[in-house]
Amino acid sequence: MSSPKFADFAHYKQERAALINHDRSLRRDNPESKVSPSEAKADAIIRQLRLSENNSVWATEHEGVPHPFPGMEFLTGRNIILKTKLFEILAKMPKGALLHAHLDATVNAEFVLKLALEQPALHVRTAEPISAVTLSGLLPEFRALPKELFTNSEITLTDPSYIPGTWVSVKKARDTFDSALGGPDGFDKWVIGAMTINPSEGQSITYQTHNTVNKIWEKFTSTFTVSTGIIRFVPIWEKYIYEFFRSSVEDGVSYVEVRINFHPKYMFGEDGQENVPHRVWLQIFDATLNRFKADLKQQGRADEFIGARIIYSTLRYISVEDLDSTCEDCITLKQEFPHLIAGFDLVGPENVLKPLIYYAESLLRFRERQKELGIDIPFILHAGETLGDGTEADVNLYDAILLGTLRIGHGFSLVKHPKLMEMCRERNILIEVCPISYEILRLTSSMLMHPLPILMNNGLPVALCSDDPAMFGNMGLSFDFYQVNDPLHSPILLTYFLQVLVASEVTGLIALRELARDSLLHSTLEDTEKQRAIAAWEKRWEDFVESIVS
Amino acid sequence: MSSPKFADFAHYKQERAALINHDRSLRRDNPESKVSPSEAKADAIIRQLRLSENNSVWATEHEGVPHPFPGMEFLTGRNIILKTKLFEILAKMPKGALLHAHLDATVNAEFVLKLALEQPALHVRTAEPISAVTLSGLLPEFRALPKELFTNSEITLTDPSYIPGTWVSVKKARDTFDSALGGPDGFDKWVIGAMTINPSEGQSITYQTHNTVNKIWEKFTSTFTVSTGIIRFVPIWEKYIYEFFRSSVEDGVSYVEVRINFHPKYMFGEDGQENVPHRVWLQIFDATLNRFKADLKQQGRADEFIGARIIYSTLRYISVEDLDSTCEDCITLKQEFPHLIAGFDLVGPENVLKPLIYYAESLLRFRERQKELGIDIPFILHAGETLGDGTEADVNLYDAILLGTLRIGHGFSLVKHPKLMEMCRERNILIEVCPISYEILRLTSSMLMHPLPILMNNGLPVALCSDDPAMFGNMGLSFDFYQVNDPLHSPILLTYFLQVLVASEVTGLIALRELARDSLLHSTLEDTEKQRAIAAWEKRWEDFVESIVS
Repeated sequence: MSSPKFADFAHYKQERAALINHDRSLRRDNPESKVSPSEAKADAIIRQLRLSENNSVWATEHEGVPHPFPGMEFLTGRNIILKTKLFEILAKMPKGALLHAHLDATVNAEFVLKLALEQPALHVRTAEPISAVTLSGLLPEFRALPKELFTNSEITLTDPSYIPGTWVSVKKARDTFDSALGGPDGFDKWVIGAMTINPSEGQSITYQTHNTVNKIWEKFTSTFTVSTGIIRFVPIWEKYIYEFFRSSVEDGVSYVEVRINFHPKYMFGEDGQENVPHRVWLQIFDATLNRFKADLKQQGRADEFIGARIIYSTLRYISVEDLDSTCEDCITLKQEFPHLIAGFDLVGPENVLKPLIYYAESLLRFRERQKELGIDIPFILHAGETLGDGTEADVNLYDAILLGTLRIGHGFSLVKHPKLMEMCRERNILIEVCPISYEILRLTSSMLMHPLPILMNNGLPVALCSDDPAMFGNMGLSFDFYQVNDPLHSPILLTYFLQVLVASEVTGLIALRELARDSLLHSTLEDTEKQRAIAAWEKRWEDFVESIVS
Repeated sequence: MSSPKFADFAHYKQERAALINHDRSLRRDNPESKVSPSEAKADAIIRQLRLSENNSVWATEHEGVPHPFPGMEFLTGRNIILKTKLFEILAKMPKGALLHAHLDATVNAEFVLKLALEQPALHVRTAEPISAVTLSGLLPEFRALPKELFTNSEITLTDPSYIPGTWVSVKKARDTFDSALGGPDGFDKWVIGAMTINPSEGQSITYQTHNTVNKIWEKFTSTFTVSTGIIRFVPIWEKYIYEFFRSSVEDGVSYVEVRINFHPKYMFGEDGQENVPHRVWLQIFDATLNRFKADLKQQGRADEFIGARIIYSTLRYISVEDLDSTCEDCITLKQEFPHLIAGFDLVGPENVLKPLIYYAESLLRFRERQKELGIDIPFILHAGETLGDGTEADVNLYDAILLGTLRIGHGFSLVKHPKLMEMCRERNILIEVCPISYEILRLTSSMLMHPLPILMNNGLPVALCSDDPAMFGNMGLSFDFYQVNDPLHSPILLTYFLQVLVASEVTGLIALRELARDSLLHSTLEDTEKQRAIAAWEKRWEDFVESIVS
């Protein structure tokens, strides 16, 4: 007969408290963490507010949202989230570094369309004339044309006589969009719909029971195809990058490491020719970064942004030979721009593309080459972005770790692997977690089903990341709002921190602090820069804590 | 510069294989497990079949199921599951013990209604006359009446003049059910709908995005309220228990430990009086068990069923004083029926009822009392059946383990707790996992999101259990089919094993073997009985393996 041994109930309660502490001892905000008196007070305020809003804001019915709950599907719940005081408070939180975002999907689609409309060189075409019947199924294809190919002004996409594939200037296409299809507003709605997974689709496409991970990836991939036609054009690219930095800073981010897809060899230049090579992309990136920092400095906000670096990325369907030459390209760029190239990754839907083992030998050669040349381009690999257990996408985790990855992009299935969890904790491999991305890509149904608490309770370093915020709905604000310098207008990371906070009773303000600090600690910044970044963040954190308390 | 060190690619692949093996070394079917040549062959056949059916049965569209996938929502996918060869094969698998099921929810609702119609004493009433408008919202209330209260034959539930609350004999109510509402068939549909969460509700209630765990629990609780009015009547209870044993054996189960709710002090006797005490319940259970075993023996199938025991359960809303007297009742029953009382539990929705800590002091006293009396009624507690992290329902896990629970009912949130995972593995605490229950109660959206692989990869002993199969849809077979002695007619555990198999590439036949064996190993059977049960199961397992190979 096995039986618990306790002297009395007080003894039981003492053992219980000890067990709970022991179970939480691996957490980055473990019971031994240093907490200032102000932080303790602010944490209590946040916890009390969470509890009271669970019973007020979340306990009432809201239009179009039958049974709301904290941590519910982001696209459906975001208008309720906006009503909470927690949201308002977290808006001011300094978020640290943004370590996982794909540049082509970081800027609000409405803003991108606005940029497109300013460029006479940008044209659009479709595979059929647009009608009420074809509208929802047709995707716009954008590209810049050289001046001599600018088209005659008489053509319109919605004319039944439109010859499929004929280029029309974007502005013209918008101005002449059939009024029966909404006119210019209808055009905007159509283009933005093709570039985003928006809330109304939230009901029909994203959140429908039968939609699988692969089905939503199809829609997701098509949004990239549409928007890159606009973005990868030098006059727009500069403005796009600037806006990415600007909105990141507004979101409380002080440093970014952004993934750029270098698979296309060229982008379009101002002359409409597709001939601008990678090194010019980086020159523009560098110049824009410097311009942005100078502008911030002029506003007396230099401390809000340390800088930005690039994770060189290619796609997981290329051949091994192509990977070899891609790695050489990456090395060449690193040699010219050592301060910009932060790491290397291979991206794309893991469930359907090639596994890392396919590329492993080439990737090992890549590291050898770096050693010979005395340079360091660490792997920062996507792995385990899957529901599978033992599938190729899941098994990518073993390869990422064996290849020496500095961090893991997503690592959604990592929690299934006891040994790998231990290795990540011991080797200090940070997991780049993108909560809302997994929900929209149907890996989880809500924050409550998310494995994040497992990672946190096991003491793995985690950073919250936005992944592809432009595709996932950038709060749907209009152009007008967008001009206003309002911290609520691009609250991507803000929302993530909020969702993480409401999905766990263990998580409080100190856990959010560790998430933000870990993002800076696990960046590729050099030691001195890193210390400076952390010191600046700590100063802002103290101010933030004081603002809650007062 | 950190960098992986491998002599060559062969070395890399060798290290990779070793890491994968190491990561899986905790599993019950770890790479060191004993596997016979026949088992290896059968495992390969099963894996090949899973792969080929993923690309055939699951890759085509099926009526009413837009994007099917293996491991999809059970209620929607079950007609596709039935078409697979894997299903046909697993039908013959000996499943071991059924360790987690609530007796009141174990027998097909159509069968229960059929039993009710045979009993003149059973009556039904509603809170309003039934009309096309009120039908879907009204619940039937059943109870046995003493002969002197049998009602006049002129009353019918669907008559607008029906006086709310008037008892009508069940048979009469069925016969006179308004033909505009479907007549007798409409009556059956209404009653069965009130006793089950059925597939059509699967679309609207169970699987709708906004349905939360608490919302579906409301429906779930109401199904119990309706069916207990029929079941807790001696002439039906006997037949009900017999059917539970029979269908368990048909499902490949050779031993059961069933939870019975002893919160009501009495059930209804044949005379329509609510005066049959707990000890008579157990006498009936015992007699029925012996009768069933004798019948099996007569059919030469004695080895298919070892027996059944009861986990005494009460509800998590009673007061501490009531718990004290409940524990005394449990002790009295254990003293009279030592072979029947296997353990003790408190049940009900953990997210809304009282936490274990509320009862902990009383539960410790209960164990002390047992020690004094020289008896052993181990706790087999529900805990962690929740999406929460650090919520009361989640924290129940600490109490269950500290109180010395023999197994954990559900333990859905256990995977969030590194220390508790370790304790369960070291103390050999088995987790009673009910895969489809969590999906229907909205803890997971599909088998692919289920934490089961985390438990298995961490080496925790797990048994697959049916929980409340009657409420979750018993394959919807008609009375006619139900009479046929067909192994497919109550394939609850069968389906569970199948779903577990298709949700992980790591899991194969050997993992299923360990799940089945663990269910017997972690039963409360005495050593000798346990050895006998395992030996009988092993013999059947060998036959099963041979049947796959040949």
